[in-house]
Amino acid sequence: MTTTATTLKGQPLDKTVLESMLRRRMFYTPSFEIYGGVSGLYDYGPPGCALQANIIDIWRKHFVLEEDMLEVDCTVLTPHEVLKTSGHVDKFADWMCKDPKNGEILRADHFVEDVLESRLKGDKEARGEKVEEKEVDPKKKKKKTKGQEAIKLDDAVVKEYEEILAQIDNYNGEQLGELIIKYDLKNPTTGVLPTPPVAFNLMFQTSIGPSSNLAGYLRPETAQGQFLNFAKLLEFNTGNMPFASASIGKSYRNEISPRAGLLRVREFLMAEIEHYVDPEGHKKHSRFHEVEDIELVLLDRHTQLSGQTTVKKMAVGKAVKDGLVDNETLGYFLARIHLFLEKLGIDQSKIRFRQHMANEMAHYACDCWDAELLTSTGWVECVGCADRSAYDLTVHAKKTGAPLIVRERLDEPKIIEEWETVIEKKKFGPFYKKDGKTIEAAILATSQEQRETLAKEMEQNGKVIIDVPGVGDGKVEVSKDLLTLEFRKRTENIREYTPNVIEPSFGIGRILYSLIEHNYWTRASDGGDEARGVLSFPPAVAPTKVLIVPLSTNQEFGPFTRKLSQKLRAVGISSRVDDSSASIGKRYSRNDELGTPFGITIDFQTVKDGSVTLRERDSTHQVRADEDKIIAAIQSLVNGAKSWRDIEFELPVFEAQELEVR
Amino acid sequence: MTTTATTLKGQPLDKTVLESMLRRRMFYTPSFEIYGGVSGLYDYGPPGCALQANIIDIWRKHFVLEEDMLEVDCTVLTPHEVLKTSGHVDKFADWMCKDPKNGEILRADHFVEDVLESRLKGDKEARGEKVEEKEVDPKKKKKKTKGQEAIKLDDAVVKEYEEILAQIDNYNGEQLGELIIKYDLKNPTTGVLPTPPVAFNLMFQTSIGPSSNLAGYLRPETAQGQFLNFAKLLEFNTGNMPFASASIGKSYRNEISPRAGLLRVREFLMAEIEHYVDPEGHKKHSRFHEVEDIELVLLDRHTQLSGQTTVKKMAVGKAVKDGLVDNETLGYFLARIHLFLEKLGIDQSKIRFRQHMANEMAHYACDCWDAELLTSTGWVECVGCADRSAYDLTVHAKKTGAPLIVRERLDEPKIIEEWETVIEKKKFGPFYKKDGKTIEAAILATSQEQRETLAKEMEQNGKVIIDVPGVGDGKVEVSKDLLTLEFRKRTENIREYTPNVIEPSFGIGRILYSLIEHNYWTRASDGGDEARGVLSFPPAVAPTKVLIVPLSTNQEFGPFTRKLSQKLRAVGISSRVDDSSASIGKRYSRNDELGTPFGITIDFQTVKDGSVTLRERDSTHQVRADEDKIIAAIQSLVNGAKSWRDIEFELPVFEAQELEVR
Repeated sequence: MTTTATTLKGQPLDKTVLESMLRRRMFYTPSFEIYGGVSGLYDYGPPGCALQANIIDIWRKHFVLEEDMLEVDCTVLTPHEVLKTSGHVDKFADWMCKDPKNGEILRADHFVEDVLESRLKGDKEARGEKVEEKEVDPKKKKKKTKGQEAIKLDDAVVKEYEEILAQIDNYNGEQLGELIIKYDLKNPTTGVLPTPPVAFNLMFQTSIGPSSNLAGYLRPETAQGQFLNFAKLLEFNTGNMPFASASIGKSYRNEISPRAGLLRVREFLMAEIEHYVDPEGHKKHSRFHEVEDIELVLLDRHTQLSGQTTVKKMAVGKAVKDGLVDNETLGYFLARIHLFLEKLGIDQSKIRFRQHMANEMAHYACDCWDAELLTSTGWVECVGCADRSAYDLTVHAKKTGAPLIVRERLDEPKIIEEWETVIEKKKFGPFYKKDGKTIEAAILATSQEQRETLAKEMEQNGKVIIDVPGVGDGKVEVSKDLLTLEFRKRTENIREYTPNVIEPSFGIGRILYSLIEHNYWTRASDGGDEARGVLSFPPAVAPTKVLIVPLSTNQEFGPFTRKLSQKLRAVGISSRVDDSSASIGKRYSRNDELGTPFGITIDFQTVKDGSVTLRERDSTHQVRADEDKIIAAIQSLVNGAKSWRDIEFELPVFEAQELEVR
Repeated sequence: MTTTATTLKGQPLDKTVLESMLRRRMFYTPSFEIYGGVSGLYDYGPPGCALQANIIDIWRKHFVLEEDMLEVDCTVLTPHEVLKTSGHVDKFADWMCKDPKNGEILRADHFVEDVLESRLKGDKEARGEKVEEKEVDPKKKKKKTKGQEAIKLDDAVVKEYEEILAQIDNYNGEQLGELIIKYDLKNPTTGVLPTPPVAFNLMFQTSIGPSSNLAGYLRPETAQGQFLNFAKLLEFNTGNMPFASASIGKSYRNEISPRAGLLRVREFLMAEIEHYVDPEGHKKHSRFHEVEDIELVLLDRHTQLSGQTTVKKMAVGKAVKDGLVDNETLGYFLARIHLFLEKLGIDQSKIRFRQHMANEMAHYACDCWDAELLTSTGWVECVGCADRSAYDLTVHAKKTGAPLIVRERLDEPKIIEEWETVIEKKKFGPFYKKDGKTIEAAILATSQEQRETLAKEMEQNGKVIIDVPGVGDGKVEVSKDLLTLEFRKRTENIREYTPNVIEPSFGIGRILYSLIEHNYWTRASDGGDEARGVLSFPPAVAPTKVLIVPLSTNQEFGPFTRKLSQKLRAVGISSRVDDSSASIGKRYSRNDELGTPFGITIDFQTVKDGSVTLRERDSTHQVRADEDKIIAAIQSLVNGAKSWRDIEFELPVFEAQELEVR
């Protein structure tokens, strides 16, 4: 399958060839394959696992260490009540249809998109236009070609379809159902209309404990655990704001029909940051000046809603100034995300930041930009950067009564006149028993306007009715001997506020897969063998840094191999020995496919004088020097202090044997 | 609560004080605490998370990199069929009783143990003996003191109880039920007998996919994913044996009543190695000579069955020679585990290796030694080292037909005469359809004796009956046109075998907790403040390596603090700044509790000449030198090249300000 995607060297990217190489080299493999596999579940083999560990390591240094973030590790198992409060039980769902004839389960938005795209393609063919392989959003399953016929559509219909597709992420279930009826969208495999869309919650459910009475879920994101620990984290940070917590761990989403390899899976590694910021003062960031000149490629909400995908390239400083990006903190993280992706070796020309449209955003977000990477399946959302406002901390505080707030000493005391609630604690608790806390929280959450109204009501009736969702019928009567409402003047020395949260959230598997595509090419571009794949990972990211290759299986080489391997280990450089009987060329070729940047050959000259050759993966050039010089060279290459050009300049170039490798 | 456990300095360990310190410093915290918490679930705060990451890092270097193990990352979600085959669906259970009066759920073995121990304690009191706080196995919940009365027992009864307790891990559910009846073991909280024990499977269940038809579990160990990938891993290792795979990841066990903090949790991080070895040749290990002199403390199976807990200290070489430890590979890993624990900073006098008794072993194990660490809750199983023989690879191969075997070229061809099965593939598959593979596997699994019998049967009846569990009624008829059985002579150049597996399996949370206890002490031992706790982690393990403390909040110190922090980051040393207004002493004290080994003070002298003081946590001694010398000193301390004594010898000792810290 050749797509419009290209390799690192601009060659057309043959995805079938790439996938077969990744499989052969065990980057990843379908889980439980000998049992037939389970869709949406993949295992990482040794190179994939090392690549993942290196990405995580760089992430931790780039974000957590650089900014003194507080890393936590919270449980995946999460009780029902927490995710009920966070809104995930009610709202974390996709729309699902069923084909009444064959029972096939379809994700509604993908289905509508597939059928419309297929019709548009048929129209183009009927008009005799060239049908380009449009980049497909990876969130959508691969287009069925089945059922697609070359039928010409009215120009007005084409326009209608295109407008629908530009906003496909913006429809709810009812609207998707209406589209299916209106445009008579039949399932191409059966020729019948699917059932109306119903919400399918994406969380995996289980029960905790032996009596099965505590319902729980596998977390769909790592964020909630961080929010619930907010008060402790703030204390750990000795009360200082702003600060961020961070977490690396698995999350789970029971996707309706995962089909895009590593890009849409049911179990995945996430790295998430929750940056807590004072909502007052326009969410300024003290280090924004460090990044303001960094240029980003932006695709904003308005452009998309007008049916366009035209991007704007501009410095993040200007983007914030122009109001395209809402505030400095959000802008700061967009730039930091860009720098991180660059550091990993992501192709700069294949990154864009796309803003979510209103209905597309998660229930908790008030703004969101995705870092999308261009791959053979189109633009892939790899990092989300959402402004969750005070949503989560507020709902959890309201539900539990825990003070998920910041208390800040004011430089100048503030005089405040406002309605206050005074609860008669001694009577209140015993009267409402277990509901007391919830009712108290509801009273405390009332606004000034509500309190004024309540005060009047109390004066008239000697009691008030408070809305308390979850207690009885949601209405609770509170009498005047339990609650007083007073308009008071007071001096405040402390300001209390609920921080807003800016959340950069990284899908490690998606980044890993995109990184592979962006660094892949074949030797055909050098006039070499088409079948010889190379993964040109930067040395810091590469799964293994050095391949040690004894020239032959001659026993004499053994001690040199072992010593070299030990020395590299001592300086923290990962290496592997390939002492198989395959030719040097074959062994290097195997390691080009694994993305190993350097190779050391041990030959008869080594036995004589201790010198070895060092080969660089991308150029296949070699230098020769004594072992310790070569090790020093590798260290400086891996830590980025020197480039291969520097090394070729410093050490004698070695020409022999290279024929065999080319 | 004071236990018989001691701190690093031999002080009695006050667990309440320690736990309150760990909580205050956010090493770990009950998950979902603001929602009331869920027993058996804990979150790691920043120091716990960093400690965990450092333990994992050392583990990876000590095992994976040192021995070129193939690290993989497999999914937690596991379909039913896999765990049915592995035996976990049927056998991975604990025995559970219910109190019919109050509905309390009890783990049967813990319940029997608790009541008998309580009676023995009452007996001792009645005899006027001193009642020692016996070390309690952490697997067992804390003893209830309620209902315990000072009643004297017959000497014979005491002996009976003691013998039962010595083998408590060796009883099955029925036997535990009999003990409850025989000794009239009533629940002290209600005074009634619990119901007979029933098996409670410890796996968390869920369902995968939108149609809820694929039952799955959260894996109870990381091993199965590794086994299922065996063939691919062997190929990745270019067919070389022996080799090991390794995995670090979460596993899940739905404990009946988890109550021992981090020591018995429902979600936990494991690090597991599966070392594949040829069962022929006594499981020799090529690097055994490197470890044979290492002394281990061993508590074997026979000693325990005779009601004793006397340990033997001996070199692992001798233990293998004497047959106490079955083979070199097992012995090699026991020694390597010992070295790993030592490297982490585990107290050498608090490690023992205990062999499992026959009924105690997991269903897949043929031998197992636990590395147990002594803590305030007794000896805690922290690492298991099991010989799983060929169990897992065999059952999965049999179920799926996948060749989970090694094919080894023989130096000399072997002539073999034996019964062979020839399946008429063209007819066989279409005839049995979906059951074909399973039936074929069953035929291939028949022994030579069985084949001889089958051949006779075939000759007489023209058909045979094969046992195929899971297909129809378990009996399948195969006619002679589908199968031929022949006694043939052939020459073999290849030997095929299923490797055996030696599995060292590490519970990271348990190791982490034990490490904390082993490194904890209070300044009272130096004549200082009782309340001043210290965690003397080795520098490589410590969550943060350096605390940077500006003398005061004076603005002048800011640039120095930032520059130092940046320099440390550049050389890969983690540091934190504490520029709060607390006194220097208080700030150092806080970091003693966090286990930070080094502190750098920035004062007015720094502003003048760039020199800083370096404080060592355990001695509280300080040296003073210019910044770069101090950074170099820290590097050599963290990588283990130098000790604090070396540094005190090399750099000028600094005496001032120390009064405030002491």
